[in-house]
Amino acid sequence: MTTIPETMKAAVLMGSNQLEIKEVPTPKPGPMEVLLKVASCACCSTDVALMDKPFLGQPPYGDFIPGHEYAGTVAALGETVDEFKVGDRVAVEAHLGCMRCKNCRVGNYTACLNYGTEKHRANGMTANGGFAQYVINNINTVYSLPDHIDFDEASLITNLGCVLYGFQTVGGYVAGDHVVVIGPGPLGLISAQVAKAFGAEKVYLIGTRASRLNVGAETGADRVINVHEEDPLEIILKETKGIGADLVVESSGAKDAPMTAIKMLKPMGKILLLGIPHEPVLVDFEDLLMKNKSIHTVRGEGWANVARAVSLLGSGKVTLKPYVTHSFPLDDISKAFKTFVERIGGAVKVVVKPNK
Amino acid sequence: MTTIPETMKAAVLMGSNQLEIKEVPTPKPGPMEVLLKVASCACCSTDVALMDKPFLGQPPYGDFIPGHEYAGTVAALGETVDEFKVGDRVAVEAHLGCMRCKNCRVGNYTACLNYGTEKHRANGMTANGGFAQYVINNINTVYSLPDHIDFDEASLITNLGCVLYGFQTVGGYVAGDHVVVIGPGPLGLISAQVAKAFGAEKVYLIGTRASRLNVGAETGADRVINVHEEDPLEIILKETKGIGADLVVESSGAKDAPMTAIKMLKPMGKILLLGIPHEPVLVDFEDLLMKNKSIHTVRGEGWANVARAVSLLGSGKVTLKPYVTHSFPLDDISKAFKTFVERIGGAVKVVVKPNK
Amino acid sequence: MTTIPETMKAAVLMGSNQLEIKEVPTPKPGPMEVLLKVASCACCSTDVALMDKPFLGQPPYGDFIPGHEYAGTVAALGETVDEFKVGDRVAVEAHLGCMRCKNCRVGNYTACLNYGTEKHRANGMTANGGFAQYVINNINTVYSLPDHIDFDEASLITNLGCVLYGFQTVGGYVAGDHVVVIGPGPLGLISAQVAKAFGAEKVYLIGTRASRLNVGAETGADRVINVHEEDPLEIILKETKGIGADLVVESSGAKDAPMTAIKMLKPMGKILLLGIPHEPVLVDFEDLLMKNKSIHTVRGEGWANVARAVSLLGSGKVTLKPYVTHSFPLDDISKAFKTFVERIGGAVKVVVKPNK
Amino acid sequence: MTTIPETMKAAVLMGSNQLEIKEVPTPKPGPMEVLLKVASCACCSTDVALMDKPFLGQPPYGDFIPGHEYAGTVAALGETVDEFKVGDRVAVEAHLGCMRCKNCRVGNYTACLNYGTEKHRANGMTANGGFAQYVINNINTVYSLPDHIDFDEASLITNLGCVLYGFQTVGGYVAGDHVVVIGPGPLGLISAQVAKAFGAEKVYLIGTRASRLNVGAETGADRVINVHEEDPLEIILKETKGIGADLVVESSGAKDAPMTAIKMLKPMGKILLLGIPHEPVLVDFEDLLMKNKSIHTVRGEGWANVARAVSLLGSGKVTLKPYVTHSFPLDDISKAFKTFVERIGGAVKVVVKPNK
Repeated sequence: MTTIPETMKAAVLMGSNQLEIKEVPTPKPGPMEVLLKVASCACCSTDVALMDKPFLGQPPYGDFIPGHEYAGTVAALGETVDEFKVGDRVAVEAHLGCMRCKNCRVGNYTACLNYGTEKHRANGMTANGGFAQYVINNINTVYSLPDHIDFDEASLITNLGCVLYGFQTVGGYVAGDHVVVIGPGPLGLISAQVAKAFGAEKVYLIGTRASRLNVGAETGADRVINVHEEDPLEIILKETKGIGADLVVESSGAKDAPMTAIKMLKPMGKILLLGIPHEPVLVDFEDLLMKNKSIHTVRGEGWANVARAVSLLGSGKVTLKPYVTHSFPLDDISKAFKTFVERIGGAVKVVVKPNK
Repeated sequence: MTTIPETMKAAVLMGSNQLEIKEVPTPKPGPMEVLLKVASCACCSTDVALMDKPFLGQPPYGDFIPGHEYAGTVAALGETVDEFKVGDRVAVEAHLGCMRCKNCRVGNYTACLNYGTEKHRANGMTANGGFAQYVINNINTVYSLPDHIDFDEASLITNLGCVLYGFQTVGGYVAGDHVVVIGPGPLGLISAQVAKAFGAEKVYLIGTRASRLNVGAETGADRVINVHEEDPLEIILKETKGIGADLVVESSGAKDAPMTAIKMLKPMGKILLLGIPHEPVLVDFEDLLMKNKSIHTVRGEGWANVARAVSLLGSGKVTLKPYVTHSFPLDDISKAFKTFVERIGGAVKVVVKPNK
Repeated sequence: MTTIPETMKAAVLMGSNQLEIKEVPTPKPGPMEVLLKVASCACCSTDVALMDKPFLGQPPYGDFIPGHEYAGTVAALGETVDEFKVGDRVAVEAHLGCMRCKNCRVGNYTACLNYGTEKHRANGMTANGGFAQYVINNINTVYSLPDHIDFDEASLITNLGCVLYGFQTVGGYVAGDHVVVIGPGPLGLISAQVAKAFGAEKVYLIGTRASRLNVGAETGADRVINVHEEDPLEIILKETKGIGADLVVESSGAKDAPMTAIKMLKPMGKILLLGIPHEPVLVDFEDLLMKNKSIHTVRGEGWANVARAVSLLGSGKVTLKPYVTHSFPLDDISKAFKTFVERIGGAVKVVVKPNK
Repeated sequence: MTTIPETMKAAVLMGSNQLEIKEVPTPKPGPMEVLLKVASCACCSTDVALMDKPFLGQPPYGDFIPGHEYAGTVAALGETVDEFKVGDRVAVEAHLGCMRCKNCRVGNYTACLNYGTEKHRANGMTANGGFAQYVINNINTVYSLPDHIDFDEASLITNLGCVLYGFQTVGGYVAGDHVVVIGPGPLGLISAQVAKAFGAEKVYLIGTRASRLNVGAETGADRVINVHEEDPLEIILKETKGIGADLVVESSGAKDAPMTAIKMLKPMGKILLLGIPHEPVLVDFEDLLMKNKSIHTVRGEGWANVARAVSLLGSGKVTLKPYVTHSFPLDDISKAFKTFVERIGGAVKVVVKPNK
């Protein structure tokens, strides 16, 4: 067993968009907690947003280490913990919740009613995260990894957990269905792959960039549609004999996407919203209501779907490897985010390695 | 047993907003059908809309008798019918569906995929309805009435069926919940009453007219909020300790109602959409997604909820009587619609009596 | 604020069926916990069972205070607790769970995977309970009471919580349904009342004792059936035109009840199991399968249904008062249990008052 | 277009276990019906049972052609049918239902309340079936086949439809779950394959015959357990760290299987019952209730799951080919059943070809 150093290297948010590598005290796990040695921590667009403008409940500048998508090794156990042992390889979920509000009590911890107060905890959002050599996790947010899943892939697991939570929310049963995914970002690409893995009849992926659509075509989409070249609505209606899709996953966040999504949907069809338009968008409630359609959302990787995500990666049913396109040491975290945001070199997900 | 006359009096739509009382052949029931002698047929805003501008699949001017909210007596049986006998008092639902598409096959007949084609049937919309002395119904759309439910009340039953279908759609279980209803039209008033009947902790009814809010206060709403006098959002948040309502039923169709509804909703809360804004409306998808909220709709009185509606009226658990404010003979149908549309004399629902 | 005494009076289990009143140290609440001053604690048949033969995880003789159905006043707050204040009137649920297994994580805490280990806690079962002047509760198990609900009624609230959890489990939506309840014990009586409160068309209550059936007839059952006098199956089939009931709540625990329950059920109907036969019973799986029926169970008052129970008592929608037939001071706890077990004086639920 | 002959060859049930090849009039399709030319019709144990002792509603000896698992080509269209055209390759489901009872109305047509009356129809059970050159189907029971699915495989599709209906009934979402299947008959083998296809973590198949278990191991089961050699309960508990399986599919019909199934199940776990023990069996309701477990059944291939089955076969996600072990011409139907019942030559499913 290796000794845990008193201090560690971490990326600390010192101001808006000011991430600095600092030497800070290594945290100590309390009851029901473990200390993890971070192997890989992925850049997420939520990080980009909260580094720009603080989220509700975010620790103050100078005290906050971002990063909520990570994987690593158990380095120390807090009191009462016998669920893990030192050396275990693990993945995590970001949201602990507060474990004491009405939503958390019944398992809806990603919709915690104490979100943003000091009772609540979501690593990398309202508590310190994984852009550091070590991080503390409550055991409710830690999942053992089989040896053959590497840490880079495992660091993306909350994305898969979120998509799975979304599929479970809309019924979890898409065998034989026509599924449309709008937006080939990480969540969209994974949604297409999951829809196919669960037996969808045909998965359509709609986007604007050929490179991303190509990644989608290689990982589950049966039919990619570049809106610069083809009319998605026309294609979906033609392929479904005028009826429309059973499920549309809106993952682009584009302002006009919800209207398109509704039009593509069959009567009784469902929209799963994963992408966030940051301003109110126009929605055709008349179409929605006259055809008995519904709109579902998911916040985070709820209902312990990270456990299911680990299983699907372990069996090879789903793979996240094709989306890990770049990796950087912690010292180069700014370069990592630049690569991610500007999609340099066809970047999909970019991983930071704090202990390399 | 009374003889059925060869011809009958009916209100026939001769052109846009041109309803004329005519003598037309009395229809004959086919297999699985019954002929009903209409006692009461209520005016609905859907009638107002389709008399103005034809709906998809509506029979041509000169051939179409509107009216889909009615009750009466079985006058004759088609082939194979032994579920009813002549003289039975009955209520109806409008939507038969096509009984042969993928949605109808699994019970979602109000979202029939053949809606508007000749395979589909919804009385008073795509087939003749109840503003006539007689009307034909498929037995799947007919429900026996206990003797003590009068026909005027029974003619409103699809409204209750629709609200019940809505409550079933969002889980059917509101005991102890905070429920907000926006819009004290017939569906809104009934929603408030149903929420209370099913054990909601507190039912809020939001509107703009004191008279309608008073009706709501007498039939289930614990707290009425006149937006001209009070700020509903402030009240809901205060009453729920800042958390928000579990369920918001949007029944006003107002353009700004969806945004208000979302703001009032607690994380994981649900919106049930019953009112139709006829143009696209702005919706805050960021709030929706960040707090795991969802939007549900219902078209019509699906999943045989009219059967449940008959039961609730029969036991007195729910009453529709306070909403039947006026009645007219068939000859005065234009006066009936004028009273309904202009809310003359505090009109809520107005009933036409074709055989009086 | 009154001072909390260093020691308190409690009923301690000293051996099988050996309950002794002792002076023991008053417990101190830890983080997320409150100390309650117990006003009323009801006798339950689970108490009778575990005093006879220890349950899994039960503290050793000499260290265990039973009692899991109680209500009282907040006397002291543990660290971090701001959800309650001293003096608050509250009811409780028994099951905390472990807050760290896969079932608890998603809200299924009454089915905790650590049940019976030291990680798990269910007051009055695996931790000390309410047959004492004071008791400690985790705040997840505490619910504020409106002033007009008295403590005797409130002490029965887990029974209502359990029945509500059962109804939610089978869909929560029984409006217009035929519901049969077998066994007029406390859970059966409450089930009949809840079914009626939620709008069931007709509620049948089946039993063997006229006195209990009478209580049922006064609190919700439309039709009571004494099996010594009438054939329940014949009645149910006749009343439902040969189709059978939508829901059968089996609450008797009798060996032949499951077979009767299945026979009474319509195709696609559901059985909710609340009564426990202590030996394996015969079940007709052929009938079950050929008619697509299902069997559901609930352990405890899950999914925070005690919150809903408080609301239903508060609004008067459901009342538990008629079932509180006797009360005794703590010193007479043995007399209380004798009255409860032998149903002396028509006893339904018997309450013990530790601070009187 | 080929002419349809006036008479056809059919296997008519002349008495108990007396199947005779006869020349009978070719039936004519009515409205909403098609005439199918049968390519393959599979032997099912339900056929064996109803040829031995008539089912409820079965046509009289001399008038009844069994066979409900078949596939073929559309040979003629009844009135109003435009959903299919002559020459279409199709698979079928057995249950039409009555299209007019309360269960059929909401999509639960395999649990039709008119089962066995003349209103009800289930081909090969209460109406003529597929052991004939031609058969009539209502279009609600007909599904188009892609060209690359052969008729032998397609004739087994109701088995897959039934298993899918079962999975949908228990939630449809088994990704990451431990699933146990008891009984490697056709439904059990398919259940194991479906569980794996939907992403189960580990699928266990329990049986008594090495040959069948081998088929299971080749088509989805991760771990086969021969009860003559190993203790299944011990293995399941060990593999799940003492917790138990998430789902147990009981497909053996063995008398002791339900007790074993319950013991193997984790708290909150579900049993899906596909096998029929023909006498009442012992069930441990105490275990069931104390651990919040439930028992679900499915009758037939409900909720249009045959449509999903066609899709899964079409994409190769599921294959039924390994289970079609033998085929015979119609004249040898007795040999076909003997092979099926006695499992001659390792028979799993045996197919009859009426037009060869």
